[in-house]
Amino acid sequence: MMPVPLHVAFAASPSGLWRIDRITAVSGEGLPAAERLAVLEGPEAQTARVGVWVLRGVTSNSRYTNRQEADALARHQAMLLRPQATCAALIPIRKTAAWWDMAQDERRAIFEEQSRHISIGLEYLPAVARRLHHSRELGEPFDFLTWFEYAPEHAAAFEELVRRLRDTPEWRYVDREVDIRLRR
Amino acid sequence: MMPVPLHVAFAASPSGLWRIDRITAVSGEGLPAAERLAVLEGPEAQTARVGVWVLRGVTSNSRYTNRQEADALARHQAMLLRPQATCAALIPIRKTAAWWDMAQDERRAIFEEQSRHISIGLEYLPAVARRLHHSRELGEPFDFLTWFEYAPEHAAAFEELVRRLRDTPEWRYVDREVDIRLRR
Repeated sequence: MMPVPLHVAFAASPSGLWRIDRITAVSGEGLPAAERLAVLEGPEAQTARVGVWVLRGVTSNSRYTNRQEADALARHQAMLLRPQATCAALIPIRKTAAWWDMAQDERRAIFEEQSRHISIGLEYLPAVARRLHHSRELGEPFDFLTWFEYAPEHAAAFEELVRRLRDTPEWRYVDREVDIRLRR
Repeated sequence: MMPVPLHVAFAASPSGLWRIDRITAVSGEGLPAAERLAVLEGPEAQTARVGVWVLRGVTSNSRYTNRQEADALARHQAMLLRPQATCAALIPIRKTAAWWDMAQDERRAIFEEQSRHISIGLEYLPAVARRLHHSRELGEPFDFLTWFEYAPEHAAAFEELVRRLRDTPEWRYVDREVDIRLRR
């Protein structure tokens, strides 16, 4: 188990483990092209130098998940860096002021009761491993960085997951999104 | 209106606006004695040098407040730095791993349904102005820094507020708390 909060830096860097296949601007401004990405954790993350670009985030407690959902996620979730999971995606998103101005119960209702964000994610476990990083309080350009890992045989399932989430009421509150695909 | 998230540094510093009356270790380790405190906001906060000590936090969206509660708070809350509010308190707290391991619905139930944290705070508005800062994701020694301001005539009411909160089920999950009282 990694300590929480864990500081993580996603650094476009020639020495990174991951080869960047493509960077797509889904909403708003994109990110500059780069060849490779390093995922730096803990003290390494906090001292990471800015190369082409670096995105920083921190793992934290869950903000919407209830006990039943948390138990279901814990039962099914997968670790990062499984040998067969050679595909990855880094999807930074920023949400609108309207989202952040809502109260907790309003955000929860859109997140799960209307958009089924947790339930949809559960359908793709354990094939798609996922780690969420919070960036908004770090003064970063994005609010969240989500990192996904999956085996090549689950690439079609992953595309479906991303498509279904982008089609939810929650995604109307996303005003910047970049989709970075990687392989190792 | 201040921008959110707003980075804030509470720096023990000879040039601070606030004179420190006393620093009390309520639970766990205290903080070193100091004469004065400066409250630095925004870019100033991020470049604050460590003097005797500096505690850093960031304002953020509410995590437990529902719409009805948020509206009640907005109707009654007071600004910081009102001329008559010459007393202040900075109360840094850290919560246990057991607190952070709970799901959102479990934390909300203890926070409000069992402890009435929001309702109790509302009773002391607008006499006691309050701003919450999140520190846990910044790699800080405390999870939250709460800053309060009130007029000398409301000092007894403020003591009552603090006593009532410390007497709640929520406070069983507080394993470090320091109480810093100030005047200007």
